[in-house]
Amino acid sequence: MARASGEAVLTRAVRILAVFEPDRAEAGVAEIARLTGLHIATTSRLVAQLVELGLLSRLPSGRVGVGMRLWELGQRASPTLSLREAAMPFLEDLHAAIGHHVQLGVLDGTEVIFLERLSAPGSVVNFTRIAGRLPLHASSSGLVLLAHGSHDLQERVLASPLERLTPATVTDPRELRSLLARVRRDGVVITEGHIHPEATGAATPVRDRHGTVVAALGAVLPNDGRAGGVVAALRAAAHGIARAHTARTSDSH
Amino acid sequence: MARASGEAVLTRAVRILAVFEPDRAEAGVAEIARLTGLHIATTSRLVAQLVELGLLSRLPSGRVGVGMRLWELGQRASPTLSLREAAMPFLEDLHAAIGHHVQLGVLDGTEVIFLERLSAPGSVVNFTRIAGRLPLHASSSGLVLLAHGSHDLQERVLASPLERLTPATVTDPRELRSLLARVRRDGVVITEGHIHPEATGAATPVRDRHGTVVAALGAVLPNDGRAGGVVAALRAAAHGIARAHTARTSDSH
Repeated sequence: MARASGEAVLTRAVRILAVFEPDRAEAGVAEIARLTGLHIATTSRLVAQLVELGLLSRLPSGRVGVGMRLWELGQRASPTLSLREAAMPFLEDLHAAIGHHVQLGVLDGTEVIFLERLSAPGSVVNFTRIAGRLPLHASSSGLVLLAHGSHDLQERVLASPLERLTPATVTDPRELRSLLARVRRDGVVITEGHIHPEATGAATPVRDRHGTVVAALGAVLPNDGRAGGVVAALRAAAHGIARAHTARTSDSH
Repeated sequence: MARASGEAVLTRAVRILAVFEPDRAEAGVAEIARLTGLHIATTSRLVAQLVELGLLSRLPSGRVGVGMRLWELGQRASPTLSLREAAMPFLEDLHAAIGHHVQLGVLDGTEVIFLERLSAPGSVVNFTRIAGRLPLHASSSGLVLLAHGSHDLQERVLASPLERLTPATVTDPRELRSLLARVRRDGVVITEGHIHPEATGAATPVRDRHGTVVAALGAVLPNDGRAGGVVAALRAAAHGIARAHTARTSDSH
């Protein structure tokens, strides 16, 4: 039998690591084999190696979960760590001021991925979580990032099937194109019920020192027509984040 | 030449990922080869595969840094995500109340690793950062975790060389043993200048629903003899975190 090449080993290891999600924090070897489509013996051997390296950890039950080492490797030199750290005080202030979910998202592929989220018990329903993803066309943060994304990215998203999450989700490419133009013009977007009928998203761009949009600052509010009231606070916080992030990145260069 | 086994490939890949630190957010292939001791050709091939998988990302300069996918894999199912999420509102309140660094640390091996840290510009010097580590015997959070750690862990640390970071660091095993007993008795520890001459640490345990200590909640303050004033706030926040964490973990079981 041919031995797996280095590339195959890494690819398989990442497939195993990807099994673990917020809703599946632990799994047994047989479950991992089923979810990855890998042979049970291969799975068992790779899981043992990943546990040995600390990327997975073996629980008392014999099942495995994500290891502290994996979290640490990804966290400590994350490309977005300095952005997140610069943003944190502003997210706290904004969260204290509006009392609903606030979040910071960046572009990854054709999705927005959320670096940080502050929420309060009793806040309106929210589908985002830290390291969670949403499609660009549906979420307010995603629309900000798409509106300021490259031409290629926009054409790719506009040409792809646009999933309808609620009746309010914009799924018509022509409508989406004009929405993106409005987002660029207004510097803010408010999406009422595009992701969930009871929630309104509001988001605004965060720029780096060259003026490039590097993140979206967003809030998730009840769908009661009053989202306009948070726009000024969102804009002010986005400016503050940009200023703090510029100060940090100038320091280190 | 023998082909590298799967285990060797994974071990080498982790050595490469470990090159990236807060102070080394990017590196070139030659630098990575030097730091890992791997052959340049091996390094180049593995880096290319890690970039392909998104665990590393290629920068415009040709150098590489940590990829978003690595952050995401470690973050979204982190064993400590629910603890961190439960703690966040209390960290914010504490931070607002005392105006200095506050942080949440957990035990990993013979070190404390910090899951979260909130700091303010102008706060006293602090050596911790998110995903940063400190030795158990020197830091206030570490002393809390060590005091409530297993007998084996305590004996292992007491038998190992205890690094002196400042003249105030406790490096005598007998003195450390009695300090640990005091930490258990008092439920709090204040370390004046143990890590840095100008900073005082204060930390208290955070317990899970079984009463087991799962984290240390700490603050870093100026070394001006007034740390006692934050103890009640620390204790209250630690209780709040325990309550919120218990509510979460009961929900999901």
